[in-house]
Amino acid sequence: MGIDLKRKHEDGVSSEGTGYTAESSLRVLDMVPGQLYETIVVSWDESMGGNAAPIGVLCTGERSVTLYLYPGTHTLENILGNRIFTVNVTLDPLIFTEATLGELGHEMFSSHRGYLHLRGADAFFTAEVESVKKVVRTDSYGETEIHIVNAGIKEILRGEDFRMVLNRGIYAVIESLINYTRAGFMDPHDLMDRIREMNRVARKVGGPREREAMKMIIRELESKGFK
Amino acid sequence: MGIDLKRKHEDGVSSEGTGYTAESSLRVLDMVPGQLYETIVVSWDESMGGNAAPIGVLCTGERSVTLYLYPGTHTLENILGNRIFTVNVTLDPLIFTEATLGELGHEMFSSHRGYLHLRGADAFFTAEVESVKKVVRTDSYGETEIHIVNAGIKEILRGEDFRMVLNRGIYAVIESLINYTRAGFMDPHDLMDRIREMNRVARKVGGPREREAMKMIIRELESKGFK
Repeated sequence: MGIDLKRKHEDGVSSEGTGYTAESSLRVLDMVPGQLYETIVVSWDESMGGNAAPIGVLCTGERSVTLYLYPGTHTLENILGNRIFTVNVTLDPLIFTEATLGELGHEMFSSHRGYLHLRGADAFFTAEVESVKKVVRTDSYGETEIHIVNAGIKEILRGEDFRMVLNRGIYAVIESLINYTRAGFMDPHDLMDRIREMNRVARKVGGPREREAMKMIIRELESKGFK
Repeated sequence: MGIDLKRKHEDGVSSEGTGYTAESSLRVLDMVPGQLYETIVVSWDESMGGNAAPIGVLCTGERSVTLYLYPGTHTLENILGNRIFTVNVTLDPLIFTEATLGELGHEMFSSHRGYLHLRGADAFFTAEVESVKKVVRTDSYGETEIHIVNAGIKEILRGEDFRMVLNRGIYAVIESLINYTRAGFMDPHDLMDRIREMNRVARKVGGPREREAMKMIIRELESKGFK
């Protein structure tokens, strides 16, 4: 599509050749149990054809994660077939976008001890499926059969350029605060709808400090008559 | 309010006593000219009474920033009075929330060579006003007189725990992609309103890769008949 996905920074720094350091715990990546992180999950079919999908990964321990996978996706099919995959960390908006709108080309994958991963990822870890449970989730969009995949981590590799793993919790709080400061200028129903949506996000993906922040914002707005 | 603002992590790691390293360019904090970052600006009155406010700071060079300040705020009053302030980096949602809803207590400030800064900040830099321009901004909320403050950086201090400075660009893209995947289940007008708002955020705060990602998402939705 004419976009150089490998060029990560405007100043031309490429992450080709990034050295990776092996780590023993997801804590080194600042990943905390109970929080959900925005990552790129890489899986592959029997002929090692790679697939990359933006997926929220729940950290469940120092060396374990849980994925909630929707039916009809390559990711689910590949992971049920191979029982292994990688979780890849990047802050590049174009990688997330290309992986959602289309498919990443094969030049975007590298292999490491039989696992495919995102070439130039800030960090990645290799994972092995431990259990899969099917549940039916009912939400505002109807009923969906979800596969809950629990996986153990084999290797954690942190690149030199690693900064952090995306978590939407802090942004839900920041956006709520921006809306809070505009409260006098917004339709009160639109305001509270937006705050409630951000509260849902913070509770789903964030930690105790994000949840506490949202409670304080909602309490303050309610004390001013918003509901 | 019963919340220990100094306790940054659930595991009790405190940033008290964090060592700071002096740096020569905002690039070391991954701050890029043209992008706007969510920070805590600390200013003070003539009796060194500190004030902390969540403010978006535009990086304009390796050692310069621009602030857009609203009238009637302590921040503007203090900065026009003293001509100096600090920009503080934190990822703590409770600091942003306390500083928006109320005022941080004096125990939340430290002093460094005559500048007040946020105690335990992941990083901070000291700034000196170079010029101030008043402009009238007209937006959907009406007319507001804004002070555009251009400032030069004196010292940049990076803490051991520094990860990154918050930029809402990548989150605008992630949220747009989440909405994109729900396109079939959402009201098309709500969807496109949300995408347009996220495009506005990405263009305001993000870099070329965020803007390009938003263009791709909008192009893809338009090709599917959304408008």
